[in-house]
Amino acid sequence: MKTGIITVGNELLTGFIDDTNASWLGRALTAIGLPPVWHLTVSDNREEIKSALATIPTNITDVIITGGLGPTPDDITMKTVADFYGFDLEYDEKYWKSLAQRFKRSGRTIPEINKNQAFVLVGPEIIPNPVGSARGALINQNNQRLYILPGVPIEMKAMYTATILPLIKPENVVAKVSVLRTTGIMESALAEKLVNINSNFPTVTMAYLPRITGVDIRLIGNDQVEIEGFKLEVERIAGDYIYGYEDTELEDVVGELLTKEKLTIATAESCTGGLVSHRLTQTPGSSDYFMGSIVAYSNNIKMNLLDVQESTLLKYGAVSEETVVEMAIGARTRLGTDIGIATTGIAGPGGGTPEKPVGLVYIGLATEKRVKTRKFIFHFNRQLNKLLTSQVALNMIRLELKNA
Amino acid sequence: MKTGIITVGNELLTGFIDDTNASWLGRALTAIGLPPVWHLTVSDNREEIKSALATIPTNITDVIITGGLGPTPDDITMKTVADFYGFDLEYDEKYWKSLAQRFKRSGRTIPEINKNQAFVLVGPEIIPNPVGSARGALINQNNQRLYILPGVPIEMKAMYTATILPLIKPENVVAKVSVLRTTGIMESALAEKLVNINSNFPTVTMAYLPRITGVDIRLIGNDQVEIEGFKLEVERIAGDYIYGYEDTELEDVVGELLTKEKLTIATAESCTGGLVSHRLTQTPGSSDYFMGSIVAYSNNIKMNLLDVQESTLLKYGAVSEETVVEMAIGARTRLGTDIGIATTGIAGPGGGTPEKPVGLVYIGLATEKRVKTRKFIFHFNRQLNKLLTSQVALNMIRLELKNA
Repeated sequence: MKTGIITVGNELLTGFIDDTNASWLGRALTAIGLPPVWHLTVSDNREEIKSALATIPTNITDVIITGGLGPTPDDITMKTVADFYGFDLEYDEKYWKSLAQRFKRSGRTIPEINKNQAFVLVGPEIIPNPVGSARGALINQNNQRLYILPGVPIEMKAMYTATILPLIKPENVVAKVSVLRTTGIMESALAEKLVNINSNFPTVTMAYLPRITGVDIRLIGNDQVEIEGFKLEVERIAGDYIYGYEDTELEDVVGELLTKEKLTIATAESCTGGLVSHRLTQTPGSSDYFMGSIVAYSNNIKMNLLDVQESTLLKYGAVSEETVVEMAIGARTRLGTDIGIATTGIAGPGGGTPEKPVGLVYIGLATEKRVKTRKFIFHFNRQLNKLLTSQVALNMIRLELKNA
Repeated sequence: MKTGIITVGNELLTGFIDDTNASWLGRALTAIGLPPVWHLTVSDNREEIKSALATIPTNITDVIITGGLGPTPDDITMKTVADFYGFDLEYDEKYWKSLAQRFKRSGRTIPEINKNQAFVLVGPEIIPNPVGSARGALINQNNQRLYILPGVPIEMKAMYTATILPLIKPENVVAKVSVLRTTGIMESALAEKLVNINSNFPTVTMAYLPRITGVDIRLIGNDQVEIEGFKLEVERIAGDYIYGYEDTELEDVVGELLTKEKLTIATAESCTGGLVSHRLTQTPGSSDYFMGSIVAYSNNIKMNLLDVQESTLLKYGAVSEETVVEMAIGARTRLGTDIGIATTGIAGPGGGTPEKPVGLVYIGLATEKRVKTRKFIFHFNRQLNKLLTSQVALNMIRLELKNA
């Protein structure tokens, strides 16, 4: 079995939206050991859709086509597929009535324009749509199965999961995918550390996904034991750089550790402008350990609300180790928490000097016993300097709690 | 002229990353009136790459191929293209030496593995890489031009802009793309309002891009006058729902208005957890008008740092119009600004009651003269409830300043 994808839509080709349906299907098919080998995107255009159907590689057994099943005149996928394979389209009065009922129940009148969604191919199976009005179809042709689905992501995903997945999922060979998430180390340095593992676990495929905030390592294979062995080796070598697994976010890990240690936290932010606080509060239940923040852009607020000494600001400047120490302590004491985390820096693009360039940041972490600080010079734009600073701040909290 | 795209890479097909190169190229080509009509993705696999080259539709004149030019053994695009079209690959000693020099200047030794990037096709033009080590190639074959570029986005974009764009940009027929960004109105309601415009401007193509925070309207056409006419009509009908154009963010618009009116602002945030503050500080120069924030998750902080009355919290609760009014006033007075904006609500998933369900939020905006409030019940998850609340808060500031 080999799988492929056709996505139909002008908005995809013109880059108005990213083709997240294709990447979602890519992940879903990879997870069952059938990674797509071919993905074609064409416009909502009869000739182009036909040409797409004509060029499906013959070694592909299962093709998922999404997009162009909506009610508007530019939704022509079903009609074009009918033409191409020589199927008739038949009006399904019963379905139209049930659609009208469904609209009525939610207090709306069904627009006449939806009528084209009541037409079905004569012959092929219908793929039901549990969450919308556009039904799909399953066509068996030339030893290939074509699954036609709408492009609305929530409908596409529901129909894939309910109908296609049970049909194509192999009995035994299910690929195991495992992601280890790292931060604080560059891709090349990580790759150098991990270079020899693969030879001991030849059935596992390893891939790096570098992001600005860290590098994800993805392991895929069919042998669960080898994957687990590989994972242990990565953990042994990459150690503290690994903060989580699968789609866990760093702020969730920090939240788990705070909860476990029964500790509370507050932030005092200058250059990150509230981003550390925003990220900490993305985690459900964060109100149990997160008390609040003071975002102090102006020096007055640093003095009045965080008790930073005027003399410190005058002598060392707002962007300095001395200031970030007082901010971290101020966060703890003013907001009454166990931990205070503070950031100050020059996010850019303006405000840099030869001594204190754009990208210079100080991060401070205060506990009852001590204050730790770190200094960085990031070389990015404002948004990325903020993001990286928030990442380092959260990671400092993680390491502090983990190794406490 | 018609354009197409081939993207090469396992990580794209398996959905490990979204294919943002393809959408970037889609937008770039659409902007010069050459929207791609065909986009194929294949793995880093000889046979699949060859089959991709063999199936390029004959009506396409210009194809951009990205990916697989890196230094590692799975980067096989150039070699496969050479095989397919019968070109020799030649080792370019001069380029290798210049690469080695470039590495040396930045204090590194060039790895031997990079040597494969010094091989060039004999015959085709070289496309220089101003920002990396992988050079591209331009192949003229069967009345089609193939541009081979690396997959690293920053390199791909630089090479497209420096070399390909000047070659393919039509002299006169440049498509005009214009985006109007709206917030506060649903796609269907907006579409209903705008339904009749298109008939007056038949050469303009209109598309809606609904996001959770608003709907973008994109106009494309070759006739500048028609586009401008269409735009004026949309502006007349959609009015205050339009907050900006092209890729302007709502926080940037708020910043412009604050700067113009010479006003300062502070936030007091409960349910948004610092997100309003974070968004306001994404804008370069925001330190001119943004002074700071108090993120008050706990009631103590609401009382101690924002002067919310204990009696208000006891009588009406933390999530109430009364509390948000006092928070907004507290932000203004405690942080010494012209405007205070405050949020309180139940972001979820926990904390809801029958009277105060998850998604209930209050937003308050205090100026010297008065306090305005709004109440919403959002039906999303925690992250989206936070995002929507921040969007409404920023939009309230925009409308307040715009209509002042």
